[in-house]
Amino acid sequence: MELELVTIGTELLLGFTLDTNGAEIGRALAAQGIRLTRRTSVPDRADDIREAVGAALRRTGAVLTTGGLGPTHDDVTKQTVAGLFGTPVVFDEALWQALLERYARYRRTPTANNRSQAEIPQGAVVLPNRWGSAPGLWLEGAAGLAIMLPGVPGEMRNLLHHEVLPRLSERTRAAVGVIRSGTIRTTGIAESALAERLGDIEARLAPLTLAYLPGVTSVDLRVTAWHLPAAEAEARVSEALGLLEAGAGEFAYGRGDTDLAAVLLAEARRRGCRIGVAESCTGGLVGGRITAVPGSSDVFVGGIIAYADEIKREVLGVGAATIGAHGAVSEPVAVEMAHGAAARLGADVTVAVTGIAGPDGGTAEKPVGLVCFGFHVRGHQDSMQRVLFGDREEIRARASQFALFEVYRRLRSLPD
Amino acid sequence: MELELVTIGTELLLGFTLDTNGAEIGRALAAQGIRLTRRTSVPDRADDIREAVGAALRRTGAVLTTGGLGPTHDDVTKQTVAGLFGTPVVFDEALWQALLERYARYRRTPTANNRSQAEIPQGAVVLPNRWGSAPGLWLEGAAGLAIMLPGVPGEMRNLLHHEVLPRLSERTRAAVGVIRSGTIRTTGIAESALAERLGDIEARLAPLTLAYLPGVTSVDLRVTAWHLPAAEAEARVSEALGLLEAGAGEFAYGRGDTDLAAVLLAEARRRGCRIGVAESCTGGLVGGRITAVPGSSDVFVGGIIAYADEIKREVLGVGAATIGAHGAVSEPVAVEMAHGAAARLGADVTVAVTGIAGPDGGTAEKPVGLVCFGFHVRGHQDSMQRVLFGDREEIRARASQFALFEVYRRLRSLPD
Repeated sequence: MELELVTIGTELLLGFTLDTNGAEIGRALAAQGIRLTRRTSVPDRADDIREAVGAALRRTGAVLTTGGLGPTHDDVTKQTVAGLFGTPVVFDEALWQALLERYARYRRTPTANNRSQAEIPQGAVVLPNRWGSAPGLWLEGAAGLAIMLPGVPGEMRNLLHHEVLPRLSERTRAAVGVIRSGTIRTTGIAESALAERLGDIEARLAPLTLAYLPGVTSVDLRVTAWHLPAAEAEARVSEALGLLEAGAGEFAYGRGDTDLAAVLLAEARRRGCRIGVAESCTGGLVGGRITAVPGSSDVFVGGIIAYADEIKREVLGVGAATIGAHGAVSEPVAVEMAHGAAARLGADVTVAVTGIAGPDGGTAEKPVGLVCFGFHVRGHQDSMQRVLFGDREEIRARASQFALFEVYRRLRSLPD
Repeated sequence: MELELVTIGTELLLGFTLDTNGAEIGRALAAQGIRLTRRTSVPDRADDIREAVGAALRRTGAVLTTGGLGPTHDDVTKQTVAGLFGTPVVFDEALWQALLERYARYRRTPTANNRSQAEIPQGAVVLPNRWGSAPGLWLEGAAGLAIMLPGVPGEMRNLLHHEVLPRLSERTRAAVGVIRSGTIRTTGIAESALAERLGDIEARLAPLTLAYLPGVTSVDLRVTAWHLPAAEAEARVSEALGLLEAGAGEFAYGRGDTDLAAVLLAEARRRGCRIGVAESCTGGLVGGRITAVPGSSDVFVGGIIAYADEIKREVLGVGAATIGAHGAVSEPVAVEMAHGAAARLGADVTVAVTGIAGPDGGTAEKPVGLVCFGFHVRGHQDSMQRVLFGDREEIRARASQFALFEVYRRLRSLPD
């Protein structure tokens, strides 16, 4: 089954609203083996909606719309789609009673406008909306199938999962073939180097397709099986993930949407470590990443944000002579920060980050992007430095990820 | 001038990639008075691209595409668009030399595939890409105007602003009527309370439109002037922003995409304050927000991430008796944290955050979402608590925003 999506809303074209509905619907349909073949965004204007929905129906016979179902004058989806199906819009008394109950529950008095929310294309099935006031509509006719959902993301999502997907599943159950994807997450290696490392793996994965998805802190490898029976698709994706994981080796840190901080915490928990951080240029982001994981408190004790040099000296005990000789952004200072954090926090594993995030402060010798890392792992200390790429935000995000990854590598290679 | 956008990429339809390019392009065009009339996403398939780009050209005579310009076999945008313009794809020696220089700079050896990146539709203007390897292309002919940009967001953004908008501006300079928007940012007040406070302001803003845009940490108020002469649009938006700012009162903290942390830093700088933080449940996010602002180092000294109670006691000097009597999540502990941070860091303004971010750890008396804040502002101490709404990530983001806002309010009300 193929389907097109038409998202309706002038906001979407002005760019003030990100079209998250489109992504959510794409994922949900793919998981059910329904191919979303096109996505079109049009303003709240009847002519544009008619043209886009009409063309979608001609191409695939099935269209899902979001938006334009509210009570105000710029909500014209129902009337326009009804027109395409050659059916009138009628007042639905049962729907009106349900709406009145909803208003009473929230102690609101419906206005004249609200009555229009009980109007539906004749013959349409009402998809009840328990999460808001505009119901979804399911309309079938000679023109094909039109599914209309409200544009508010929470309402759209609930109606999609509770009302639309079960109905679509009824139709596709007999058909062979689902779309299944799987992801391996890697970090600490550039996309091109990863591609070289994986070599001709794409040929071995066929008929599955492989996509490299580079992000600011990770390169994700995603395999997709297209239109295979569910069991076969799952087996092949699982096998492919194993191959990719082996190929990426030490740079692979998880599957799906695994977060590196969660992987690090699990490894530390297994080994009974207590983790602390000492942050200068990242200013708390490494601690923020770690504590974003629920339950981090049994492993993470805390950290020192040593932004000013005096905090490096006075709280972390970094030697004034070390800063004088090497500068605050240097490996010796990073090592002393890590050591000081371990002592101050009573942690046995710490990482320190000091660098130049920019946009100012770089020199020929120490350019913007230079970040030094110090590690203290059960008494062993070492340091690294990298010149990271990007703007201030990207450099800080990459430095945080790098710090987490390198701590994880060190924990993983500790003797059991 | 009207223009349609076609974003190309199977990823977009599978929903794994959010179409941020579309929103960015919509905003940038509107600011220049160019109306984006439709946005279409199609897979990396020549037939789909041809159909969508062809239809867009027939409707408006101008199309902007993103994606499908890379070196691999699924990058077919150039060939397909050239076909619509009836022009062949040719090898551009100057572009190839520029690409070779780029590879040399990054010590990479180009592969046979890379040569295809120097192929362009005959007659197209090359929009040089200093941020990546796929150049943009500007092609005009009997079919109209086609602007092709790469899909990588950073490269797209730079090419859009440096190459495309200046060229489009040349064409639209003479035309009357632009779309201008302005935004007032508010925090610490719910959307419905804000609407009540603003009363019937919408009528006074006409013909400008007003939108409430609630986010996790702010409610933005956006006014838009549609198709007015530039000078009038700007005057009216400016006047409207003044009205909204006055209406929102103490809850307004800036215009446009102003960041609250930057506003706080400016106020602290003006008053010669040195700021520090003490964070438990936010785990570094408040420090991360502050240090995200370039130049924060002249005001922000650092912080203590006191996740474990022993760090609260041993580094911040919170009394064991205070924790014993009130619990770690309590106003008395928050005040002692703020006080301890000021002493330990040598800061004269500190904020402390301790709370229950969830999903576990809540009780009837202290539910998930309870966050206590302690403030130390030039010797004066006080505390607040709030029950914040949302999941762990939202609670932490809201707690960070609340901490910044309340510090800002206290600084603002200091005697000059």
